[in-house]
Amino acid sequence: MMSVTSPVKDFVERVTAVLGVTEAPLALHEPAFSGNELAYVRECLDTGWVSTAGKFVDEFESRLAELSGARHAIAVVNGTAGLHAALHVSGVLAGDEVLVPTVSFVATANAVSQCGAVPHFVDCAPDTYGMSPAALAEHLRQVAEPAGGGFRNRHTGRRLAAIVPMHVFGHPVDIEPLLDLAARYRMPVVEDAAEALGARIGDRSAGTFGVAGVLSFNGNKIITTGGGGAVLTNDADVARRLKHLTTTAKAAHRWDFVHDEVAFNYRMPNLNAALGCAQLERLPEILRRKKGLADAYAHAFADAPDFRFVDEVRGRSSNNWLNAIELSASMSGRRDEFLEAAREAGYQCRPVWRLLHRLKPYAACPRMGLSVAESLEQRIINLPSSPQLFREVA
Amino acid sequence: MMSVTSPVKDFVERVTAVLGVTEAPLALHEPAFSGNELAYVRECLDTGWVSTAGKFVDEFESRLAELSGARHAIAVVNGTAGLHAALHVSGVLAGDEVLVPTVSFVATANAVSQCGAVPHFVDCAPDTYGMSPAALAEHLRQVAEPAGGGFRNRHTGRRLAAIVPMHVFGHPVDIEPLLDLAARYRMPVVEDAAEALGARIGDRSAGTFGVAGVLSFNGNKIITTGGGGAVLTNDADVARRLKHLTTTAKAAHRWDFVHDEVAFNYRMPNLNAALGCAQLERLPEILRRKKGLADAYAHAFADAPDFRFVDEVRGRSSNNWLNAIELSASMSGRRDEFLEAAREAGYQCRPVWRLLHRLKPYAACPRMGLSVAESLEQRIINLPSSPQLFREVA
Repeated sequence: MMSVTSPVKDFVERVTAVLGVTEAPLALHEPAFSGNELAYVRECLDTGWVSTAGKFVDEFESRLAELSGARHAIAVVNGTAGLHAALHVSGVLAGDEVLVPTVSFVATANAVSQCGAVPHFVDCAPDTYGMSPAALAEHLRQVAEPAGGGFRNRHTGRRLAAIVPMHVFGHPVDIEPLLDLAARYRMPVVEDAAEALGARIGDRSAGTFGVAGVLSFNGNKIITTGGGGAVLTNDADVARRLKHLTTTAKAAHRWDFVHDEVAFNYRMPNLNAALGCAQLERLPEILRRKKGLADAYAHAFADAPDFRFVDEVRGRSSNNWLNAIELSASMSGRRDEFLEAAREAGYQCRPVWRLLHRLKPYAACPRMGLSVAESLEQRIINLPSSPQLFREVA
Repeated sequence: MMSVTSPVKDFVERVTAVLGVTEAPLALHEPAFSGNELAYVRECLDTGWVSTAGKFVDEFESRLAELSGARHAIAVVNGTAGLHAALHVSGVLAGDEVLVPTVSFVATANAVSQCGAVPHFVDCAPDTYGMSPAALAEHLRQVAEPAGGGFRNRHTGRRLAAIVPMHVFGHPVDIEPLLDLAARYRMPVVEDAAEALGARIGDRSAGTFGVAGVLSFNGNKIITTGGGGAVLTNDADVARRLKHLTTTAKAAHRWDFVHDEVAFNYRMPNLNAALGCAQLERLPEILRRKKGLADAYAHAFADAPDFRFVDEVRGRSSNNWLNAIELSASMSGRRDEFLEAAREAGYQCRPVWRLLHRLKPYAACPRMGLSVAESLEQRIINLPSSPQLFREVA
């Protein structure tokens, strides 16, 4: 006999099978500092190098580049700043339109706004929620018309200036067809890889396919610098421009203050980079644990018709940043019951972000039909995903 | 018998009288971490609270407010971000003009640009180099005409949207007549108090006179958070708006992501605030030492016709952030000889910033006659000013 609450109970039991019974609430994602974090931070204090110059910033950038296979990495104060700078350097201007997913954190749209441009929202793929190449292709066929060497939105008259795919929850987006579309419509791709450090498409890191890719090291990310971000790029000119523009465009001189363009103060402080260097040393172990935890969730939800574990797809390795369960369509409208019950049991779950086109500041922006995202919005539940939650099995 | 190099030699000797002979170069301004810095940073790591939430951010804000006498303080990633947010909240819009001093670090103009507005440059007073109320009054009489409830520049047609005085080197600007002008021309005053933590006008802190005042805690400032800044305000609505806009305008909710306006990711991380809390505890001692060092410079340069020690003026107490010597007009064109000689002797001196209206990105901006600043630019030399350089005398 099924009671009306049984799917909720079933859900909580499956989560409990992975995480165990808990007294203290388990956070959605927490950092851990079990390596050289304190040692490196102490070194900053001992040497006095805590600010916008210092060896840890350079080292953090080198290690990020090496680890991701990008030719260059530029450390910045946070992912939003990185995305703003990357869009700016990619040529996005005031009055342009930028194609962004409606399934994303608000930073994706805010960075577009900070360029004076307007987000134009794209629907998501049903598998891992990244920007849908098929939907975008069909949409561009309908709305894009050639103008001035590029393309513009025939309805608004605004130039279509860039495509910003986002690797949702650390699952790499289907990047190749998006790159093809970008080439066809003469737009740069800037990857919002805020959640995707360590994720790979084939043998290449997420964030290294576009003109630039932007990482975040906020406290809830796979590694943290307190607050911070970085821009990856393989283009030496883009790297030089990014470094220059994120450091007030100051020309090198022993004492003179010459700034040769309007620029930003987005440089990551050495103190935060010190934390980042220590965290990066532990990234392989963090990724291993996160994979173990994701495997455990996948197993626990394997035979559940009401629930789909949002798994990586073939050829695109997730970093398993934030695990997610998709409720079946029959559960639509009941999402908050699941969230309440999980919280009551001590598991800090959360829904996906409110779709960007449904936020007040972006409600009037151009968009395609967004039915996939709209259906999913009421059915996604993120699960506690800290690497510390992985329980080794013998 | 005077040789042609004697003023340079004289200069170096006077600096040496204050700082002593040195083997290792003495930096212009270095932080010191002799208090609870490591303990507080370690607490962040131990508790996992390093990012955009945590007790140190709140505590840092409370202590800043208390110490400055402002009703509210909002901690941000750096002074530029604070200035951008403060101008935005003060109503500066794209296409406006903002009156800023030409004697300032480039951040003052960049923050205006980030609002989509245009800096309009104002000359400085000859005493402590802050924006000249007399010059601004005369200029506004000539260029301002009433329009739409406020005033616009009759030459460009742009609205005059704000006045941004800056407290140069920690010397408070002559704020009262600037506030009067702002009231007469219906513009808010936003104080660029990046260098002025601890400086006072009468019994009130610099940074608390305008609608908002912006502090910086960059590594070279009187206290540091690695990178960081804060906005002071006495207006509860302005404070609420600033807090909201610097934290992605997220509405409070247990799990939902509702962001109700286009906003910024400017929040200071807890890790940096931890450093700031420890530094603030030491501020009285830092100010005492900086005053001692400034007194020593004042004494060493007291009887020198070629040199003027840039001293605070009556009623406006400097925090003595960066000591400066003004060369006499007869030394114009020889500034770099002084800088070279000082550097050779191990004293890291520097000139004032290149005047903002002479920087390429701002060369075409509106301005008044800037003859005082232009004369001074070639004659200002900043001296090593770290509080550690003060030598106690019995």
